[in-house]
Amino acid sequence: MAITRLPSAGFSITIRISVTADASAIGRLTTCVGEAGAIVTALDVVDSDPTTVIVDLTCDTADATHADQVVEALTALDGVDVRKVSDRTFLLHLGGKIEVSPKVSLRNRDELSRAYTPGVARVCLAIAENPADARRLTIKRNTVAVVTDGSAVLGLGNIGPAAALPVMEGKAALFKRFGGVDAWPVVLDTQDPDEIVAIVRAIAPGYGGINLEDIAAPRCFEIENRLRELLDIPVFHDDQHGTAIVVLAALTNALRVVGKKLADVRVVVSGAGAAGTAIMKLLLRQGVGDIIAYDRQGALHRGLPDLNPAWQWLAENTNAEGFSGDLPAALRGADVFIGVSAPNLLSGDDIAAMAPDSIVFALANPDPEVDPREARKHAAVVATGRSDQPNQINNVLAFPGVFRGMLDAHAEEFTEEMAIAAARAIADAVGAEKLNPTVIVPSVFDPRVAPAVAAAVRAAAHAPTPPPAADPGPADLPEIAAEAAAPASPLSS
Amino acid sequence: MAITRLPSAGFSITIRISVTADASAIGRLTTCVGEAGAIVTALDVVDSDPTTVIVDLTCDTADATHADQVVEALTALDGVDVRKVSDRTFLLHLGGKIEVSPKVSLRNRDELSRAYTPGVARVCLAIAENPADARRLTIKRNTVAVVTDGSAVLGLGNIGPAAALPVMEGKAALFKRFGGVDAWPVVLDTQDPDEIVAIVRAIAPGYGGINLEDIAAPRCFEIENRLRELLDIPVFHDDQHGTAIVVLAALTNALRVVGKKLADVRVVVSGAGAAGTAIMKLLLRQGVGDIIAYDRQGALHRGLPDLNPAWQWLAENTNAEGFSGDLPAALRGADVFIGVSAPNLLSGDDIAAMAPDSIVFALANPDPEVDPREARKHAAVVATGRSDQPNQINNVLAFPGVFRGMLDAHAEEFTEEMAIAAARAIADAVGAEKLNPTVIVPSVFDPRVAPAVAAAVRAAAHAPTPPPAADPGPADLPEIAAEAAAPASPLSS
Repeated sequence: MAITRLPSAGFSITIRISVTADASAIGRLTTCVGEAGAIVTALDVVDSDPTTVIVDLTCDTADATHADQVVEALTALDGVDVRKVSDRTFLLHLGGKIEVSPKVSLRNRDELSRAYTPGVARVCLAIAENPADARRLTIKRNTVAVVTDGSAVLGLGNIGPAAALPVMEGKAALFKRFGGVDAWPVVLDTQDPDEIVAIVRAIAPGYGGINLEDIAAPRCFEIENRLRELLDIPVFHDDQHGTAIVVLAALTNALRVVGKKLADVRVVVSGAGAAGTAIMKLLLRQGVGDIIAYDRQGALHRGLPDLNPAWQWLAENTNAEGFSGDLPAALRGADVFIGVSAPNLLSGDDIAAMAPDSIVFALANPDPEVDPREARKHAAVVATGRSDQPNQINNVLAFPGVFRGMLDAHAEEFTEEMAIAAARAIADAVGAEKLNPTVIVPSVFDPRVAPAVAAAVRAAAHAPTPPPAADPGPADLPEIAAEAAAPASPLSS
Repeated sequence: MAITRLPSAGFSITIRISVTADASAIGRLTTCVGEAGAIVTALDVVDSDPTTVIVDLTCDTADATHADQVVEALTALDGVDVRKVSDRTFLLHLGGKIEVSPKVSLRNRDELSRAYTPGVARVCLAIAENPADARRLTIKRNTVAVVTDGSAVLGLGNIGPAAALPVMEGKAALFKRFGGVDAWPVVLDTQDPDEIVAIVRAIAPGYGGINLEDIAAPRCFEIENRLRELLDIPVFHDDQHGTAIVVLAALTNALRVVGKKLADVRVVVSGAGAAGTAIMKLLLRQGVGDIIAYDRQGALHRGLPDLNPAWQWLAENTNAEGFSGDLPAALRGADVFIGVSAPNLLSGDDIAAMAPDSIVFALANPDPEVDPREARKHAAVVATGRSDQPNQINNVLAFPGVFRGMLDAHAEEFTEEMAIAAARAIADAVGAEKLNPTVIVPSVFDPRVAPAVAAAVRAAAHAPTPPPAADPGPADLPEIAAEAAAPASPLSS
């Protein structure tokens, strides 16, 4: 029932092949690759002699298994010798995806004296006297820690800190690309909540915000709540709040398409982990009255024993009638289905049994809770987490602008008010003239989204005016420190 | 007795002045600044009307007190109104001195699919299966943590993590500028050794090396030793080892100048903190037989009660004869004085009492243990920590190349062998044809130093060949992973 995965650049490989140099040689290669279901994107001749030619053939495949099949098919050809198969994705990750660059020039002694000793000593003293100046005179102004324990990385599960690093680097790259935020990966070799809280508290002076990432539920809730209490900078768990913001934005527009209101709809949510819990809390806060939450063991309701605190809260605040039937039963007559759980839980018939003009967000990846092609036969609006389907629900629409806004506002906490403002800004980025069942969220590459989200978050933080630019005019020049500069030893330089 | 501090760019200020627009107006300003002992470096007209002109006058001053005196002198002039005084050093530090930049392009969906989901999932799995691949496929390959608790920052003392951040940012900028190393500041809001050790251990998976910085002695020794035991990446306390390396390099060349040998000289060291202890350990390892160490309470010898472990070790391994006289007494007949302590402890006469062709490293900053002008009357070679005197002892000659070499060698620890190799490389960077009493160390801007140090350290790590370049040729392309890519949820993107 899973939909076929199409060849994509994420699984692009380059195959070095030696082939007999007859007229049809290259043609046989490209035909073979095409018949194997891959897409040739480049063919480069590396070397040749009178009888053979060596080429680098690059093609998109559907996944690593498919890539192996393509290589096998080529190997089976007469007169073809596969020398080497390389993976463009791995190549791109070699040496990591981010770097630390000086913003100041250090060409000569004068520049060194200002950026480092002896000049830097006065800047240190100014911050020692007025700690708030750290937000003005250091990287704290624009820097976010991307913190993970590697316990719930993408769909890969508990793979640990080192294996999580490529994701955190990618996240940091997205922060800069879409929000102009300097983000740094903090991958922790511990999964003990007490230790994680103590570490983040200790490193916090260097950051203007904390982005918790890929930490398993329910541990993530405790860590986030304790850090919010301890820190004077915003703490944001993207798997929760980033997802909830984008889902609220998408649902807002989907309801505009079908002409229903949040207050009136019946919502069924499959998946009560970090994402599902945050989505439901935000929907409740927005006035959705009727929600039923499902997890592996079925509907959450007051009657269930031994629930963890997060599920206990959900059981008490959703499913007022204590419904305990299965997921398809709950869907009958429902207006909205939101899946953040597992593949292929539902059939087209289950969607057909929903209320007229139903809305289906099947966000499990790569295989959604229901085949979107089946869902579209019966639902008015269908969204998934996939980039090869319409209406992709992608957190990158939210987190860069949210942190841009919080940093610019010198916000000390992330608030529900900011989440709602961000969701509205994302929804409104799809103009009424563009809105339709296949376009309920803007493109992740729409350059207007992050600035709009940032402005909305800044306003929600009650800090309407942006901070001084990085290169301030004379009016922004700091006054000279009254104290004499303290000695600065080049021995520490 | 302290030498006057000269105007420097580290104390450059810009003064906005409104002055009556007569022919001699500007001349009066520059004359006044000159008479006040500052140096005019720029004069920019900001605005004017028929009767007045507004200028930004920029000048180098000796320190913040001197800057105030210059401003007072200008304010006292007739027809002059000082509007605003700004500090170019503070201006340069606004918003911090480093940034995080993506090394990968994220312009379109294909690039996003390779750098992030879904492509990144395969890279994560490869590292989960073979953790050593983290050094190849993540920032760990080129990244160093600059870790401090803010307890002994420059000459400023225990100013805490936020106030230490400008120094750590500057250090990170120097790492990139001189060594091509991506360094990130980790400023810790704790001074408890157990907590610091636990935190550094936990964040280590994201780094290829740890640079401890400005942590007070003797705590720094315990933290460094425990981390060396725990971690499989090099741990380097720059205040100790960086200083010791540069001092050994400078002493090697100074001895070449006077024609003496390490094994034959009598050395007196003032200051038994982090730097002094590391210097003495390295000199002992290099065969120096006769060292006497001084700290505030006098000469270290076996007879002293209640010494901390570091001082106990020094008492047992130096001062064989148990000399307990004062510092000037110890200097009589000594060949080498190394001061890493406090200003103005010695007079020219004390230096005159040293052995012929004596060597004086008076490294306290800004005011050395002895006035270098006095010392030069009696000693053959004099070095200080000051950038306005000959023979500046500056750690930037060591740490960028040392970490460049350790990262390229995938070194798992920093060794004394590396320290000695680095010191030799720095010393040899001053060719025999250039060596003289005023040139015993290369310029910090000499581009040959860091590569030479890196090569020496790499060789000392028994890893003679450099690693693959950042953009490897086909031979370096990684083989494709055999496993199918695991699902990657854009909900975590």
